[in-house]
Amino acid sequence: MTTHHWPSLPGIAYGGDYTPEQWTRETWREDVALMREAGVNLVSIGIFAWGLVEVREGEFDFSWLDEVVELLHANGIAVDMGTPTASPPAWFFANHPDARAVTRDGVPLGFGARGMASHSAPAYREAAVRIATELARRYGDHPAVVLWHVHNEYGVPVGEDYSPHSVRAWRGWLQEKYGTLDALNAAWGTAFWGQHYGEWDHIGAPATAPSVINPSQRLDFARFTDHQLRACFIAERDAIRAHSDRPITTNFMANQHGGCDLWAWADVVDVVSDDHYLWAADEEGEIGLAIAADLSRSVGRGAPWILMEHSTSAVNWQPRNVAKRAGEMARNSLSHLGRGADGILFFQWRASRSGAEKFHSAMLPHAGTESRVFREVVDLGAKLGALEEVRGSRVHADVAILWDFESFWAQDLEWRPSEDVSHDERIRAFYEKLWRDGITVDFALPGHDLSGYKLVLAPAQYALSAADAANLVRYVENGGTLVVSFFSGVVDENDAVHPAGFAAPLQPALGLRVEEHLPLRAGDRHDISFDGVRLSTDVWQEDLVLAGADVRGTYLGGPAEGRAAVTRHAHGAGAGWYISTRPDAAGLAAILDQAYADAGIRPAGHPTGLEVITRRGDAADYTVAINHTDETVSLQISGTNLLTQAVAEGTLEVAAGDVVVVRSPHAAQGADQP
Amino acid sequence: MTTHHWPSLPGIAYGGDYTPEQWTRETWREDVALMREAGVNLVSIGIFAWGLVEVREGEFDFSWLDEVVELLHANGIAVDMGTPTASPPAWFFANHPDARAVTRDGVPLGFGARGMASHSAPAYREAAVRIATELARRYGDHPAVVLWHVHNEYGVPVGEDYSPHSVRAWRGWLQEKYGTLDALNAAWGTAFWGQHYGEWDHIGAPATAPSVINPSQRLDFARFTDHQLRACFIAERDAIRAHSDRPITTNFMANQHGGCDLWAWADVVDVVSDDHYLWAADEEGEIGLAIAADLSRSVGRGAPWILMEHSTSAVNWQPRNVAKRAGEMARNSLSHLGRGADGILFFQWRASRSGAEKFHSAMLPHAGTESRVFREVVDLGAKLGALEEVRGSRVHADVAILWDFESFWAQDLEWRPSEDVSHDERIRAFYEKLWRDGITVDFALPGHDLSGYKLVLAPAQYALSAADAANLVRYVENGGTLVVSFFSGVVDENDAVHPAGFAAPLQPALGLRVEEHLPLRAGDRHDISFDGVRLSTDVWQEDLVLAGADVRGTYLGGPAEGRAAVTRHAHGAGAGWYISTRPDAAGLAAILDQAYADAGIRPAGHPTGLEVITRRGDAADYTVAINHTDETVSLQISGTNLLTQAVAEGTLEVAAGDVVVVRSPHAAQGADQP
Amino acid sequence: MTTHHWPSLPGIAYGGDYTPEQWTRETWREDVALMREAGVNLVSIGIFAWGLVEVREGEFDFSWLDEVVELLHANGIAVDMGTPTASPPAWFFANHPDARAVTRDGVPLGFGARGMASHSAPAYREAAVRIATELARRYGDHPAVVLWHVHNEYGVPVGEDYSPHSVRAWRGWLQEKYGTLDALNAAWGTAFWGQHYGEWDHIGAPATAPSVINPSQRLDFARFTDHQLRACFIAERDAIRAHSDRPITTNFMANQHGGCDLWAWADVVDVVSDDHYLWAADEEGEIGLAIAADLSRSVGRGAPWILMEHSTSAVNWQPRNVAKRAGEMARNSLSHLGRGADGILFFQWRASRSGAEKFHSAMLPHAGTESRVFREVVDLGAKLGALEEVRGSRVHADVAILWDFESFWAQDLEWRPSEDVSHDERIRAFYEKLWRDGITVDFALPGHDLSGYKLVLAPAQYALSAADAANLVRYVENGGTLVVSFFSGVVDENDAVHPAGFAAPLQPALGLRVEEHLPLRAGDRHDISFDGVRLSTDVWQEDLVLAGADVRGTYLGGPAEGRAAVTRHAHGAGAGWYISTRPDAAGLAAILDQAYADAGIRPAGHPTGLEVITRRGDAADYTVAINHTDETVSLQISGTNLLTQAVAEGTLEVAAGDVVVVRSPHAAQGADQP
Repeated sequence: MTTHHWPSLPGIAYGGDYTPEQWTRETWREDVALMREAGVNLVSIGIFAWGLVEVREGEFDFSWLDEVVELLHANGIAVDMGTPTASPPAWFFANHPDARAVTRDGVPLGFGARGMASHSAPAYREAAVRIATELARRYGDHPAVVLWHVHNEYGVPVGEDYSPHSVRAWRGWLQEKYGTLDALNAAWGTAFWGQHYGEWDHIGAPATAPSVINPSQRLDFARFTDHQLRACFIAERDAIRAHSDRPITTNFMANQHGGCDLWAWADVVDVVSDDHYLWAADEEGEIGLAIAADLSRSVGRGAPWILMEHSTSAVNWQPRNVAKRAGEMARNSLSHLGRGADGILFFQWRASRSGAEKFHSAMLPHAGTESRVFREVVDLGAKLGALEEVRGSRVHADVAILWDFESFWAQDLEWRPSEDVSHDERIRAFYEKLWRDGITVDFALPGHDLSGYKLVLAPAQYALSAADAANLVRYVENGGTLVVSFFSGVVDENDAVHPAGFAAPLQPALGLRVEEHLPLRAGDRHDISFDGVRLSTDVWQEDLVLAGADVRGTYLGGPAEGRAAVTRHAHGAGAGWYISTRPDAAGLAAILDQAYADAGIRPAGHPTGLEVITRRGDAADYTVAINHTDETVSLQISGTNLLTQAVAEGTLEVAAGDVVVVRSPHAAQGADQP
Repeated sequence: MTTHHWPSLPGIAYGGDYTPEQWTRETWREDVALMREAGVNLVSIGIFAWGLVEVREGEFDFSWLDEVVELLHANGIAVDMGTPTASPPAWFFANHPDARAVTRDGVPLGFGARGMASHSAPAYREAAVRIATELARRYGDHPAVVLWHVHNEYGVPVGEDYSPHSVRAWRGWLQEKYGTLDALNAAWGTAFWGQHYGEWDHIGAPATAPSVINPSQRLDFARFTDHQLRACFIAERDAIRAHSDRPITTNFMANQHGGCDLWAWADVVDVVSDDHYLWAADEEGEIGLAIAADLSRSVGRGAPWILMEHSTSAVNWQPRNVAKRAGEMARNSLSHLGRGADGILFFQWRASRSGAEKFHSAMLPHAGTESRVFREVVDLGAKLGALEEVRGSRVHADVAILWDFESFWAQDLEWRPSEDVSHDERIRAFYEKLWRDGITVDFALPGHDLSGYKLVLAPAQYALSAADAANLVRYVENGGTLVVSFFSGVVDENDAVHPAGFAAPLQPALGLRVEEHLPLRAGDRHDISFDGVRLSTDVWQEDLVLAGADVRGTYLGGPAEGRAAVTRHAHGAGAGWYISTRPDAAGLAAILDQAYADAGIRPAGHPTGLEVITRRGDAADYTVAINHTDETVSLQISGTNLLTQAVAEGTLEVAAGDVVVVRSPHAAQGADQP
Repeated sequence: MTTHHWPSLPGIAYGGDYTPEQWTRETWREDVALMREAGVNLVSIGIFAWGLVEVREGEFDFSWLDEVVELLHANGIAVDMGTPTASPPAWFFANHPDARAVTRDGVPLGFGARGMASHSAPAYREAAVRIATELARRYGDHPAVVLWHVHNEYGVPVGEDYSPHSVRAWRGWLQEKYGTLDALNAAWGTAFWGQHYGEWDHIGAPATAPSVINPSQRLDFARFTDHQLRACFIAERDAIRAHSDRPITTNFMANQHGGCDLWAWADVVDVVSDDHYLWAADEEGEIGLAIAADLSRSVGRGAPWILMEHSTSAVNWQPRNVAKRAGEMARNSLSHLGRGADGILFFQWRASRSGAEKFHSAMLPHAGTESRVFREVVDLGAKLGALEEVRGSRVHADVAILWDFESFWAQDLEWRPSEDVSHDERIRAFYEKLWRDGITVDFALPGHDLSGYKLVLAPAQYALSAADAANLVRYVENGGTLVVSFFSGVVDENDAVHPAGFAAPLQPALGLRVEEHLPLRAGDRHDISFDGVRLSTDVWQEDLVLAGADVRGTYLGGPAEGRAAVTRHAHGAGAGWYISTRPDAAGLAAILDQAYADAGIRPAGHPTGLEVITRRGDAADYTVAINHTDETVSLQISGTNLLTQAVAEGTLEVAAGDVVVVRSPHAAQGADQP
């Protein structure tokens, strides 16, 4: 992280993507008036405007953009200036057909949609740096510009590239990583299926082949793809930095696009920003939202971040795009804020009449200002205006869940033991238990310093290097409580099975080894007996060989019938739990309750459906409480609701669907906060 | 429509596709004898015989075809002469590999199947005109030839073409349509996602790209594709016309292939002809058949048409190709006739032993003449022979359903609010209600003169230009009853949301505006209260803002709970109904019954399962009544059953599975016929 | 079959694929020690080692392989020497990019997986012969080498090739087959859809086209593909033979890959070998195993064969890879042995740490020697060591089921009457009935001499030449009992419907003709009355016209209601049964029981779940009895259990999950053995 941090803005940032290029000047004037009405203080512009600024290769017309920037500035609305490199213009693809990204099947992807080019094509890199440079030169010191927004959602809609440019860069990347072909052949295990390489130039991208491509190669290609995208970002960032000292970000997609290793990305931006959209089919989308927000905060190591995009109501790209209910937009926004966001922005200000996303909701919908959505946008602006003092406060968590993009890339490759095993599903299941208990969670990598956490959960750590495993073992040794779910620690960083077998590097902490995976047939369910209670499980069993662990749960059926299902191992000053099957939600809750006890963690005890998160400021705590139910519920708290200035002494009623933000003295929340 | 109309033939045309090229001369002689036995008077020949006539490029051998034409002529069987341009020969693809059609992914489609070429390739256009010219020169005046059958099922199996020839033609088509790039950029809304075009040559076909292609571009490409196919037809038609004055047709696929705008096609043929196949999974295939027949009649503005292909029993290209039951072929044929067909032809005369369609039924099946199918073919020939006087009579309808191919093309693009919304499904649902009530229906475009209809239904008019909307508003103003279903009037002819919001141009007629779409999750059902009765609905709700309309139905659950679901607006001398959700069949029936009342329409009152249609002749009415049940039912009618010469006075019994065709004096049918 | 037969080995071959190239020399020494512990006497090596032996094109390094061969030899472990031509090295694809196989869509399949090249590319053929020659030159006389293992699983993962090399070879193959284009045009029925060919060079491979490719062309392309693969084998075989007199095999995939006509392949190998893997979703995988084993024996005309690969536990390439339960590996292995296998080998000796198949089980699993799997491997080695005398004994069957790869290729093409009709499903259903009755089955082609069988079943003989049909008619005439299932005898060897209609060539044997196929809608079920009992059927009915047959079952519903469903026809000295629908298992059992009675066949009468097969040796019978149940069951037998030396007099208890192999005097088994 560089020293440039937060955009120069008062209070909480509020606004959205703004596309004046789609509208007349008359509409621009209406827009800024309505922005002011809504309390908007920051808009992102220029993100898809490359061809309207660089009208022919190397020929620039900034006139309209100048006008927009001045109009916004005159109205007190700050600018998040986008670089338009996520969507090169028509002339780019016409002039550089070789710079198109190419699919695994060899289909070059051209213009007409949202057209990312090959991230490795020299022509693309040059063009991206040129436009970024010109924008920075012109607007780098403009008082309206408080933030740079490079590109858009790296990796989406296309990240992987099988073009010749990509293949050439890939060989270079491999040469740098491995040094020698011997090292590469060893890391990839090319002796299997006769894949030995004798020349660097014989290595190709993992394109469509007769069968399954070497998984180590694919894992490295995922790393390479992530690296190339990040290199594109860095090139633009540095081009801007040469002319501007404002903070530079690019919008992540936290838990919605897995192709970028956000732990690495967070290190190269000045401020983390994230786009988040509810998954409409999920009737508890607020839990997925909370994961995204906690992850955005965690990759930035706890620093405040910006919610760069979310939606006021429905999106357009899901099978069924469910609209938000009354109040849901505010609940969503304040959950993000509670989890560390100091900026709440939307895609987009005004709904587009044309194009692929015309059915995406906006702050100003097709129905205009006389609409539920616009009224709620104005109301939210007022609410955020009352929360200025929250800015910069931080969230604290006693529990960490491991979230490792590289492990996910490896796990998602072909030919794993069971297609029913999903890291997303397991992480959600573990997270959901904590969410329902009102326990705040950070995400972490297995190699991080975990000593600050009382409890560390590993719901899906398929790939785990020996070094990272040793870190986890040390964590337990030093008094931590670790809970590991099945199909973890299986392979190392090259997707090679650990020499001593599955989960072997965790053996000191878990007191067992995994002799064999026992995936179940579709639909098979078997009970386990856990502390005398029957819990229902499915998908997976394992044949465990105990090496010190205590058996806490036993299989009552299935291939491992009669054998250990759940274990606890006392190791050093801590304890290592292992869950070798997939319990349902009630079962997982029963097991984790015991791990809580080990860790000295207690559920927060809030009413069901009341989501409560606390941010710790220099002078006070700020508790955000969101009532997801249709009834009024009571929050035990003393302090002032900043949204109403009501003062609570011990109890605050939160109306159905409502949100409160309460300023309290520090440490009023309970003994489990340090 | 030109002045050339109906083939010179006595009575109802009867026959099918005939492929003597697959058989020996001995079989030819057997064929014509059996055709005579079956009453066949018209066969279509030459449709797939290009390579056997033009044996090498520019080298023709008509000898066998001469012989076939003479043999048919000698036996009194007229010829519908096909041009074979739907399937260019092997030499064509070998000589002109660049003339292959290309998929969105860039795969050129070659020979070996039913091989349409690029509709824009100069080599294809030239070759098609050459073979059409040579055929017309040779057979244009032959007394056996009474009709020309150009090509086969345009657009099937391939219509869209992404070849360089197509891209070049597409740019020209756009230049002609838009004149300037500014106009194109505005119509397509290219400011969205940075798609601005600065050169005509930068515009590509909407081939595979990283994400969703600009929908306006795709809509125009659908129009272009339709236009190119029609241009191919016109080129052949004009080549034939230079040498022959016989009517010229091409066989449509009414409601089975949506890629051709049949309203435009009907204007360029001399007589409409259509191919129709039952969808075997549909246990009430007769309703889909009726839609196809009514649409064939409607695009021809009521003129008699030819059923160019249907099947005697099973087809071969569906997942499960259910055979027709005894009598079903006759019921199907006479339903087409009742709905305006003056020709009943089949694919094909004799079942092919080889090739992709060997399991397609035929008039003469693999089992030969000793078969149920052939016996029914002979019987049907006799029946049609008794119906000579029906020819030329016309069908009258009081109700129109809007059927707009361009709107369907737009609606079928990606990223619509819910994948559960289907124009086909809604049109079928509305049509089915009328079919069950015995009410005859025309199809129409929203821009048509609708003043002749008492009731106009818009089950699926997603795209609606402001001009067409004004036409519908005028229709209501002048006393019409209009029923509009949800997700209608959303966008204009460029797939751009109407400036004042969804359905805004219909506001005068409907008395409301649609603030927001509220798609439901999969499987969600909610009741509405309609005139005090609970109706079950699913898929969709809308947030309606009333502007004069009366609320007739109210949501009892779901996101719009408590708000208007169904409305009626008195406007001018008429009424506009709006249904903002998807009722089930009973619910839709309840609502439409009220709209009937507004329109002065009454159900016909025939027994359930008795399909009744009337054709009005110069001197009499002809009522076709088809008993789809397993019991004898009574038809209230007076007149003569032309199939048996039985005379009915007030009542006619129709046996289970049987059909009657009754000649009655005009206007005997009830007060709702003008 | 050449005169070279069985590898020079004592007793039953036992071992697996061995890949020392993946491990250190230290591990090699551990490996051979553990192999000896497990009783391993044969390992297959070199199968994926091309690039490590031919390190650059034409440059060889045999040093490590020499060392491995010597090490194995020194430890008394024989070598099955593989040629590595299933996976050409990286340099091959780099040097010969035109030798890549190409998909139907034109995508060339490159390196990185298990990379088969174009079977028609001259460069591939040359390279394959070169490496085979060099290996044979070096190891052809080595005392350790007892068998040659050419290539690996021909046709998997890619068989079909649409490259220019393939197209060129295909035209040559067609020219050789047909001689003239007239003959080809006639055989393919190119008059349909205008596919006439006037030049050999106009014929392409059946690549992606606008619609369904000519099925006769596709059937020939399947034959051509099979032929080309076999030509590759023969080229390698002959290259080896020039330098070695050891038997040569290649590993088939019996019923798991249908692209090779194993009847023809068995004729060109010295000994049949087969790979078999359980389908994990099948809870009775032992039945599929039995089919594979019986088919492996049958294609080799009864000679002993080698199970070249199976798995000790789970595989890795299925959706859910279920591990084997305790004892299951031994039950599987001994079922193969009972059905004629004299070698039991696994993929593979030691589990690979890396690559696409790291989750495939092995003899030595990731968990090492302290594991259930390795203990069972050692135990199985001991068991097989006790069975030396079984070697060379043969299996006898009274029943044959027709298994015709060419017919399957034809049936699997597009546009058949119902997608619910599957040859695999019907063959399994018929086979399963016999398996449950303890009746041993051979597979056969319809053109084989069937006179040795009392009963011949044709569950799925869609394509049947007139000559083969005549053979079946003669079989019945001469006293055989033939049972034919629906959708059989439909087309001839060119996929053309028989001139006299469906099943016409079988009419003398069946006493009926099939007038029309009557596929049912999805989910439709109808009963038939069979000998007075209601049987449940689905998927299919037919309209039968009797020509002498007796009606034994009648449709009680559906389109053929009231008509014949099951018939029996006395013809000559035998009887022909026809089943025109798909009965469920109980229904099929009821019908086949009557056919048994005709054939003089009786169920073996073993306890349910006890699989019993007998091999007949020169001096004794060997009965393998496998208890698939969880209870002890009794086998009626006298003799010695070779695995325990226990002597049974009349009865032998077989423990739950256990297997016995009993030596008995000849003909102790019952009257139905000749």
